[in-house]
Amino acid sequence: MTAPLNVAILGASGYTGSELVRLLLRHPRVAIRALTADRKAGQSMADVFPQFYGLDLPKLVTIAEVDLDAVDLVFCALPHGTTQTVIADLFARKPSLKVVDLSADFRLQDPAAYAEWYGHAHQALKLQEEAAFGLVELNREAIRAARLVANPGCHSTTSILPLVPLLRAGQIDPDGIVVVSATGMSGAGRAAKEEMLFSEVSEGTHAYGVGRHRHTAELDQEFDRAAGKPARATFTPLLLPQNRGIYATITVTLAGGATAEDLHATLAKTYGGEPFVSVLPFGRAPQSRHVRGSNRVQLGVAPDRRPDRAIVLSTLDNLVKGASGQAVQNMNLVAGFDETEGLGQLALFP
Amino acid sequence: MTAPLNVAILGASGYTGSELVRLLLRHPRVAIRALTADRKAGQSMADVFPQFYGLDLPKLVTIAEVDLDAVDLVFCALPHGTTQTVIADLFARKPSLKVVDLSADFRLQDPAAYAEWYGHAHQALKLQEEAAFGLVELNREAIRAARLVANPGCHSTTSILPLVPLLRAGQIDPDGIVVVSATGMSGAGRAAKEEMLFSEVSEGTHAYGVGRHRHTAELDQEFDRAAGKPARATFTPLLLPQNRGIYATITVTLAGGATAEDLHATLAKTYGGEPFVSVLPFGRAPQSRHVRGSNRVQLGVAPDRRPDRAIVLSTLDNLVKGASGQAVQNMNLVAGFDETEGLGQLALFP
Amino acid sequence: MTAPLNVAILGASGYTGSELVRLLLRHPRVAIRALTADRKAGQSMADVFPQFYGLDLPKLVTIAEVDLDAVDLVFCALPHGTTQTVIADLFARKPSLKVVDLSADFRLQDPAAYAEWYGHAHQALKLQEEAAFGLVELNREAIRAARLVANPGCHSTTSILPLVPLLRAGQIDPDGIVVVSATGMSGAGRAAKEEMLFSEVSEGTHAYGVGRHRHTAELDQEFDRAAGKPARATFTPLLLPQNRGIYATITVTLAGGATAEDLHATLAKTYGGEPFVSVLPFGRAPQSRHVRGSNRVQLGVAPDRRPDRAIVLSTLDNLVKGASGQAVQNMNLVAGFDETEGLGQLALFP
Amino acid sequence: MTAPLNVAILGASGYTGSELVRLLLRHPRVAIRALTADRKAGQSMADVFPQFYGLDLPKLVTIAEVDLDAVDLVFCALPHGTTQTVIADLFARKPSLKVVDLSADFRLQDPAAYAEWYGHAHQALKLQEEAAFGLVELNREAIRAARLVANPGCHSTTSILPLVPLLRAGQIDPDGIVVVSATGMSGAGRAAKEEMLFSEVSEGTHAYGVGRHRHTAELDQEFDRAAGKPARATFTPLLLPQNRGIYATITVTLAGGATAEDLHATLAKTYGGEPFVSVLPFGRAPQSRHVRGSNRVQLGVAPDRRPDRAIVLSTLDNLVKGASGQAVQNMNLVAGFDETEGLGQLALFP
Repeated sequence: MTAPLNVAILGASGYTGSELVRLLLRHPRVAIRALTADRKAGQSMADVFPQFYGLDLPKLVTIAEVDLDAVDLVFCALPHGTTQTVIADLFARKPSLKVVDLSADFRLQDPAAYAEWYGHAHQALKLQEEAAFGLVELNREAIRAARLVANPGCHSTTSILPLVPLLRAGQIDPDGIVVVSATGMSGAGRAAKEEMLFSEVSEGTHAYGVGRHRHTAELDQEFDRAAGKPARATFTPLLLPQNRGIYATITVTLAGGATAEDLHATLAKTYGGEPFVSVLPFGRAPQSRHVRGSNRVQLGVAPDRRPDRAIVLSTLDNLVKGASGQAVQNMNLVAGFDETEGLGQLALFP
Repeated sequence: MTAPLNVAILGASGYTGSELVRLLLRHPRVAIRALTADRKAGQSMADVFPQFYGLDLPKLVTIAEVDLDAVDLVFCALPHGTTQTVIADLFARKPSLKVVDLSADFRLQDPAAYAEWYGHAHQALKLQEEAAFGLVELNREAIRAARLVANPGCHSTTSILPLVPLLRAGQIDPDGIVVVSATGMSGAGRAAKEEMLFSEVSEGTHAYGVGRHRHTAELDQEFDRAAGKPARATFTPLLLPQNRGIYATITVTLAGGATAEDLHATLAKTYGGEPFVSVLPFGRAPQSRHVRGSNRVQLGVAPDRRPDRAIVLSTLDNLVKGASGQAVQNMNLVAGFDETEGLGQLALFP
Repeated sequence: MTAPLNVAILGASGYTGSELVRLLLRHPRVAIRALTADRKAGQSMADVFPQFYGLDLPKLVTIAEVDLDAVDLVFCALPHGTTQTVIADLFARKPSLKVVDLSADFRLQDPAAYAEWYGHAHQALKLQEEAAFGLVELNREAIRAARLVANPGCHSTTSILPLVPLLRAGQIDPDGIVVVSATGMSGAGRAAKEEMLFSEVSEGTHAYGVGRHRHTAELDQEFDRAAGKPARATFTPLLLPQNRGIYATITVTLAGGATAEDLHATLAKTYGGEPFVSVLPFGRAPQSRHVRGSNRVQLGVAPDRRPDRAIVLSTLDNLVKGASGQAVQNMNLVAGFDETEGLGQLALFP
Repeated sequence: MTAPLNVAILGASGYTGSELVRLLLRHPRVAIRALTADRKAGQSMADVFPQFYGLDLPKLVTIAEVDLDAVDLVFCALPHGTTQTVIADLFARKPSLKVVDLSADFRLQDPAAYAEWYGHAHQALKLQEEAAFGLVELNREAIRAARLVANPGCHSTTSILPLVPLLRAGQIDPDGIVVVSATGMSGAGRAAKEEMLFSEVSEGTHAYGVGRHRHTAELDQEFDRAAGKPARATFTPLLLPQNRGIYATITVTLAGGATAEDLHATLAKTYGGEPFVSVLPFGRAPQSRHVRGSNRVQLGVAPDRRPDRAIVLSTLDNLVKGASGQAVQNMNLVAGFDETEGLGQLALFP
C-alpha cells in the first residue's frame, strides 16, 4: 500500500469542517494530520463534535501551529474574506502545497465581479487567477491540474449543474431564468446568532438575501460562459426548517424550439455516466431527503402548462455535494485518486 | 344579547373542520349546533381531536342526521367533488340556508374551466353560477349578498392577494409571473397516506403537482379579470417540513415603467386599511411563522438586481386565512357581523 | 366600562415577554403602557417580533424610562438573579405596585434553599418572604391577596399540579417519585448560544442539567409541604426538537393501598371544576401538541404492569401555562378579574 | 477475492428493509440477490425508495419467487406474527440457510412469556428454542454458532446494553429500575396510519403503550438473567418529533454500596474494547443526534442529587444499531466476517 495523502483541515469546528472529518476518516487513502479551530484550540474534536467520541483524531490547534511539512493538502473551511490571506500565506510557506478552499474567496475569476459582490478588492489576485472552479462535473480537467481549487457555493452547485448544459445547448433563454433555491439551516454555519436559533427557524419558512445573495455572482460567471452572452438569472434563496438539503425550483423559458422533454434528454445525456448525478424519469420531482448525507445530486424536469416554459428541479445535500463532499471529490482529482473514493456513502432516508 | 347564529360543520374530523371548531367556540355570536364526520359518527369530538377535552361540543353525526331547521349556516369542509351534490341537496332541503364551502367545488365560475381542471362536468351548474368567490379583501360586497360562498384555495389566496392589485394597476406583466408556493403539511389533510407520514415529510422538501396544480385555475380566473386579458402564471407548489404556513415567492416582470418601490406603494395603499393584511417595510421579507395561527397575511416587496423584475413575497397560515379563518371571515360578512369578529387571535410565535 | 388595568412588561424582547404581549393585547381589561428591553431600547416591538406588525404597541424603552405612575401592575420577564434588585427598586419607587415575576427569584420561600440552589444569598429577603407562589390551582387565596407573585417554573408547574394532590392524599410514596420532564426549546429563551442553534437541536434529543436542575428546588418545596415530610424526587429534564410543550413522565410508587385508578380518581376530583386542567380518561396518554398555545394542562394516569407503581403524565405549553399564561392568570387574581379572562384561546393543533 | 455472501431481504419496502439495502450495498463481501415486498412486487426499489435511483438492485418480488438456492443468508424484515411461519418454511425448504430476523418473533426464549406478551402460542417452538438473541456485545459466541439470530428490539437494545453489566455487577437494585425510552418516528414503520402523519407527530411529544410495551418482555428476559432473580423494570416509551434516535433516561437505585462513579467505571470497563459502544466522560449526557445513521451507541452516567440513585443515559439510531445495523453485525458474525465490516459509517451530524 502506498503512503496516504496527508491532509489538514483549517476550520474544523464548523459544520463543513466536521463533515470533512466524517468523510476523510473513512477515506482509504487519506490521513488527517491536523485540525485547526482558533477559538477552540486545545480542545479535542470530540469535545466540539461528540459524534467523534472514541475515534482517533488530532487535537484542535491554531493555524500557526500546523506543521506544513507534514501536510500534502489543506482544506480551508474558514470564513469568507480572511481566507484569501491565509491561503496566500500557506503557499508562501510551501509552494508545492495543494489547497481545496471551501470559502467563496476564489470562486469568482473576474476581479471586478469579486469587488462588486464582496465590497472590497481581492487581496490575492494572482491566486484568484490561478484557482480552478471546483464544480467537478463541468471542470474536471482544470481541477486535475490545479494547485488551488475553489469549491463552489452550495446554491451555485445546485443550479449550475442543471442549467449549464441547457444553456450550452441553446435550449433555454438566458434571459428567462428564475431560481428559487431553498436551503436547510446547516448551510448557515455554526455561529451563534439569534436568527439561527431553533425557535426562530423551526416550523416556518422565509426568504433571505432577496435580490442580492452572493451566490448569484457564481451563477452569472458560469451561465455567461455557457450561454456565450450575459445571462442574468433572478435568484431568491429560502430558508427551510430542516438541517440539510438544497432544493432549487428553476423556471426556464424554452428556446430554439426545445420542449421540456428535450431538456430532460439533454440532462440525461450529459450526466448519464456521472457517478454522483441522477436524472429522474421525465416529470418526476426529486426530494431533498433522498440525497441527505450523500454526495449525490438528483435532477428532474417537468413540463409547465405553459408550452413556452419548463420546470427544472435540482437537489443535493448542502454539506456534502454542496460543500465537503465536493471538496473531497476535488481532492481526489487533485491527488490523482479515483474520483469516487471515500464518497460511496448512500443517502440516509428517512 | 341577540340570538346566536346557529352553525353546522360538515366534515369536522379533518383539520379545516377542527380549525373551524377552534375559532367558532370562541366566536361571541355563534353557536355550534352540529358536527358531522361520516366515518367517525358516534364519537365525541374530543376522541377525534383531544385538544377539545373538557369543552362542550355536539357529538359527531352523519350529514343525514343534521337537523337543518336548527341551523342558519353550514360550513362544508368535505372533499372536492362530492361537495357539490351535498350542497345542492342542502339548498333543496332549505333554500334559505347560508353555506360557506371550503372545498374547491364552487371556486371556478366558468363551467369549462371547471371541467378542464377537474376532469368532469360540474353537477350543480346553477349554484356554481350563484356562488361568490370568497376572497374577502377583493370581493366583499358580493360576499355580503351571497347565499353560497366559495372559500378560495390556500395557495390561491396567498398569491391572488398581492398580485391582483398589481395587475389592476398595470405595474406587472401578466405574461411574466412565476410563483413558487411552499406549503406546510396540514394543507394536505388528515387522510392516512404513505407520502404524508412524518418520516416521509420531515427533514426534506420537494415539489409536487408540478405544472398542473388545480389552484392554478383560481389564479387564472382572478388574474385574467384583474389584467383584463389572459394572465398565465407558472405555478409550482413545494411541500415543507412544517405544519402550517404557505410562503409564496413570486417573481414578477415590471410593466408600465413601474419599479419595485411602486409595487410596494400600490400594495401598501390597497391594504392600508385592511385588518388582516400587513405590508412590511420595503425590502423586508415576511416569515410564515409570524402569521401562524392567525388570520393575518404578511406581504413583502423587494427589488431584484435585474431592474426589470421584482420579488413579491406573501405568507399566511393555510388553515386560518387559507381556509377556516377566511371561512369565518366570510361567515361574518354573510351574517352581517363585524368582519373581524372571532378572528382576533394573534400569531403564535415561536 | 371601567378603566383598564395599566401594565408594563419588563423584558419584552424575550419569548415570555412576547407571549405576554400576545395574550394581553387581546385581554379585554388591560392596557399595555410600557415595554422594556434594555439592549433593544428604541426599536419597535414589530422590529423585534414581526408578528406584531400593524398592531399598536409602545416602543421598547429601558426600565429606567418607565413611568411607574402610569402603571398598576408590572410583569417581570427578566433573567434570574438581577430580577430581585429590580423588583425591590420598583417597590421602593411605588409601594402600591403589583408585580407578577416570571423569573425564579421569588419562588423559593426558604432563604437557605435559595442560597443552596442559586449559589448566593438572596438580595431581597423581605420580598422573598412576602411573595406568593403563583401556582394558581393550588394557591389561589394567597395570590389574590398578594402584591408580589412568583410565577412558578415551567417544569415545576407540570409536575407539581399532578403530584401535590396525590401526596396530600397519601396515595404515593414521597420517596418513590421519578420525573422525566421533556421540554421544547422555547423554554431556553432567545439568547444566541451555539447549543440552541437549529442544527444543534433539531432531529435529536438529550438530557441536560442531569441531577441538578434548579426547578428541582421548587418540587422539593411543594412536595415537602404536601407530603408533610421530605419528598425528594429524582428529576431529569430532556430537550426536545419542538418549540413548545413540556411533557412529564412521572413514575410513582403507590402507597396506602392506592391503585392507579385511585390516583386517577383523586386527580379527577381535585381538578374537576378547574377551567384550565383536564384529566383524561383513565389509561389515556395526553400529547403536548394538544395544549399548544393554550393555558390548558392535560393530565393522564395509566397503570404499570407492576402493581406497586403507576405512571402519571402531565403536559402543558411552557410559554403559556408554564410562563406567560399563568402570569396573566395570576394578574387576573391580583386585579380581581375573572380568572379566565383573556385566556380563552384554544390549542393550536396541528 | 472470495465469493460474496449472497443475501435476500424479505420485506424490503419498509424502513428496516431500505436501511439493510443502504448498508449492504456498500458491504465489501455481500451481494444482494433478492428483495421482496409482497404488495409492491414488480416495482423497482428506486420507485419505492428514490434514494436508490441509479444503483443496481434486483426488482422487488414476492417471497415465493425467491430462489433460495442462490441465497446463503436471509434477512427477515417482516411484521411480527407472520414471520415465524415464513422462517419455518424457509428452513423447511433449505435447512442450511442462515437467517437474521428483525421481527420480535424469536426474541423471547420462554414460550410462556411469548404467549403472555403476544397473545397466542408460538407457531415454531423448536426454532424459538434454537434462536440466538442477537444483542452482539452480550451474546457474541452464541450468535457465531447460530443458524437463526433474533435481532433484538430497538428500545430493548438501548436499555439492555447499559443495564446488564450493572445488574451483573450487583451495583443496582433489580427492583429499582425506571426506564423512559423516547424514540423517533421511523421505528413505527412505513404503514399509512393517521397517528403517524406528519401533522400528528411534529411539534409535540407523547407516551404510548404505557405500562405494556412488548419490548418490556425482552428487558425482563435479559435483566432476570443478569440479576439472577426477577428484575421488573418500569418501562415507558415516548414518541419524539424526529426521524431517528432512541434516547433512554434510566433512573436506577444503587446497590451494594456502589456510587454513580462506580457504575460509570463498570460500563467503561465492559465496553472499553467495543467498536460500537462509547462511554462518555462521567457526568456527560449523550445526544441522539450524535449517533444518527451510525451503528454506534453512546452511554452516559450522571449522579442524582439523591445519593441512593443515579441516572444512566443511552442512545442509538433505532434503524441502525436498533435494527438493520445490528442485523448486519449479526450477519458478520454468522458469516465469519470481521464484525465491523460494512458498518464503518460515522454519524451524520447535523
